[in-house]
Amino acid sequence: MAKTLKITVIGAGSATFSLGLVKDLCLTENLKGSVVSFMDINMERLENITALAERYSKELGADLRFEKMTDRREALQDADFVINTADVKGHYHARALRALTAQHGYYYGAAGIGSFYNFELMLGVARDIEAICPDAWLIQSGNPVFDGTTIMTRQTRAKVIGLCHGHYGYLHICQELGLDPAKVTWQAPGVNHAIWMTHFLYEGKNAYPLLDKWIQEKGPQYWETHVAERTHDIQMSKGTIRMYQMFGLMPIGDTPRQAAWWTNTDIETKMRWFGQPWGGPDTELARPVHVEGLEKRLAQVAAVSKDPSAKVSDVFGTTKTREQQVPIIDALANGVGGMFQVNVPNKGGVLEGVNEDVAVEGQAWIDQTGVNPLRMTPLPKKIMLTQIEPKVNAMERGILAYLKGDKELLLYNILENKQTRSYDQATAVLEDLLNMPGHEEARAHYSGRKK
Amino acid sequence: MAKTLKITVIGAGSATFSLGLVKDLCLTENLKGSVVSFMDINMERLENITALAERYSKELGADLRFEKMTDRREALQDADFVINTADVKGHYHARALRALTAQHGYYYGAAGIGSFYNFELMLGVARDIEAICPDAWLIQSGNPVFDGTTIMTRQTRAKVIGLCHGHYGYLHICQELGLDPAKVTWQAPGVNHAIWMTHFLYEGKNAYPLLDKWIQEKGPQYWETHVAERTHDIQMSKGTIRMYQMFGLMPIGDTPRQAAWWTNTDIETKMRWFGQPWGGPDTELARPVHVEGLEKRLAQVAAVSKDPSAKVSDVFGTTKTREQQVPIIDALANGVGGMFQVNVPNKGGVLEGVNEDVAVEGQAWIDQTGVNPLRMTPLPKKIMLTQIEPKVNAMERGILAYLKGDKELLLYNILENKQTRSYDQATAVLEDLLNMPGHEEARAHYSGRKK
Repeated sequence: MAKTLKITVIGAGSATFSLGLVKDLCLTENLKGSVVSFMDINMERLENITALAERYSKELGADLRFEKMTDRREALQDADFVINTADVKGHYHARALRALTAQHGYYYGAAGIGSFYNFELMLGVARDIEAICPDAWLIQSGNPVFDGTTIMTRQTRAKVIGLCHGHYGYLHICQELGLDPAKVTWQAPGVNHAIWMTHFLYEGKNAYPLLDKWIQEKGPQYWETHVAERTHDIQMSKGTIRMYQMFGLMPIGDTPRQAAWWTNTDIETKMRWFGQPWGGPDTELARPVHVEGLEKRLAQVAAVSKDPSAKVSDVFGTTKTREQQVPIIDALANGVGGMFQVNVPNKGGVLEGVNEDVAVEGQAWIDQTGVNPLRMTPLPKKIMLTQIEPKVNAMERGILAYLKGDKELLLYNILENKQTRSYDQATAVLEDLLNMPGHEEARAHYSGRKK
Repeated sequence: MAKTLKITVIGAGSATFSLGLVKDLCLTENLKGSVVSFMDINMERLENITALAERYSKELGADLRFEKMTDRREALQDADFVINTADVKGHYHARALRALTAQHGYYYGAAGIGSFYNFELMLGVARDIEAICPDAWLIQSGNPVFDGTTIMTRQTRAKVIGLCHGHYGYLHICQELGLDPAKVTWQAPGVNHAIWMTHFLYEGKNAYPLLDKWIQEKGPQYWETHVAERTHDIQMSKGTIRMYQMFGLMPIGDTPRQAAWWTNTDIETKMRWFGQPWGGPDTELARPVHVEGLEKRLAQVAAVSKDPSAKVSDVFGTTKTREQQVPIIDALANGVGGMFQVNVPNKGGVLEGVNEDVAVEGQAWIDQTGVNPLRMTPLPKKIMLTQIEPKVNAMERGILAYLKGDKELLLYNILENKQTRSYDQATAVLEDLLNMPGHEEARAHYSGRKK
């Protein structure tokens, strides 16, 4: 008989995420009977999602129990697992940020003040866990996963696992190459949003030659004719393949979004490298489509929750998602062991060339003994120098600026942006960013001159 | 009785350097009687400098003996010390490089193909030393000192000490602050061309407050009225002080030339940060003045060498230079111990946060036991992240590109330049650079696509 667990979800108003989680819990035999504590600061979303979750669970006969909380510390009482999926400022604030920085000559929000608000939240959650439920696992599911997992595990004793979807990009490669994923073995280690495919085997044999063949024979036509149906569909784009050629390994998932500044300067350049119709996920054309999708889902949640006659499972389905949260909970709590792609501190140096207190992403065997990361094949020196080290350096600068309240370092971080053309441009955009509505706490935090 | 030494000078045609060296040798009692082997590929310069050195030595009664060689391996026979001061391509090639890259939108030669030619020379010299005079010390006095000392000590067993003048910048600070250098204690560790003053004491007390007072009380007027008399006079410039404020320690010597890209974008910006009349040493206004000075010195050498009636010591003086080469030779050979600012591999980790096979710059006690680097006060994390790590990263990328003949990495290195605006610009300037007259060997080296 499996143990009854309490699972707390911070930022539970995120509809797609929470319903997916509930579905996975309902469909996981071991976890029936668990208590799910939904916590959010948005009461309306919280009520909708809780009502829906209760109906969902009943329809599937899963016997889950639900709580809804606006008080975080209350929600954490007796938690065995905490899933943090919150993004403090959200999509509308990000849009306002992009509009402001565009006035200073930055394309698509390239300049910013770092992760002040999400760091505050993450550290708040991790410290509450230390105080209230110190044995709980914190599954960090909101960005920045890399920086956040690193800072939380340095500043607190919370047990953190950072999760992301990016690694599923390998499935997209399989699909284009016509390979059955069940016969594919792969590894893509690195740090979150910078993972590079060190191993790609099909039926036990190196499949990189198949990729090279595709590039030569099918690539040009694909790049001319392919029209993305999802904004994030860039795994086989001209830009991603060019990065593979330049750096020597295939960048996976979110990696090509950030690996080369020269793909990210303006919409024409975006289209050139990431294709039709949006030029990848990070453009003024793509973002509204993505946010519209999220809003549709929220509206759907609201509509179904107001219609007691609707069957929730008809609307949201009865197949498991491919999210890792619930299987990881089942592994840790009930010993249903499995291999997962996770972000945890590089303790023991599983990824060579990265400090032990930096969160790295790679495969780990998880069961009741805990998270057991696989020692990764070292990444080629070229990728370490051009991709991993600069990314770790930027993460460290962001954390240091935050911890010290160092405005000069914020300025440096903006100056380092490839889109910054001059000192005056950087100082001006920083002032405007700190004076922006909604940034009052950040402004106060960075108001002293500390060194 | 001191031992008779053989000192070989590679690139001896560099007039100012060689005459200074001869003068220091003549004025160092222990080194009288030494054999100096001048080696250069320019026979005319070689003959002038050798003739002059002989007269100089006679005038000062130093009993030095001289050889002149165009064959490097011959010059290295039985050498105890080898001083390499050569720059393979020289000032005229650098000017042609700047003209070419300017056509692609780069200011003052910002894009390049790395140190291919100087690496070839340095490794050639170090390998010859391994084979011919393995116990000799190699005193590397030509740039790139950082990259060169690192690559030579990794690829060969030659004992290398890299030297630079930059650290004397602290004297300029003393001068402006009216401090007697004899009462000043200082340390400025880092890597060559990126050294930061961790200690600045006057009569045993922290002198940073005196600097801060100068900045507040005298800085503004200095920046408005100061007119440099030497192109390299930027130690107290507005730009250097701004870097001190931003990063928290004073950058010394050559450091502010490279520490902030935003001071180096165009001549107006250069003037703003580095002042009148040249905007620092790295501008189209300053460089001709500097090269003209070197040419004048060469013409002077030629004139004096053709005039047997002239007294060499009248023209070139009879006081020691402040160069470290000869005192270091005296320390290693004769035990006249002293403290020097040198570049040697970071063996034992004297500078925290830098790999042991990277050449670091700092103080070392040198005597007959060898070079004994002082364990340095760790640099603040902000300077490590913003200055040292990026500089080490760029050095490593340059060495890796060279060792692998990796054109894609050359391209990446150009893309990383803050002045690069687009992928197409970088690929175009790289092609033109590799096709430039004088770059035939480099083009061949980088012609394969290696990963």
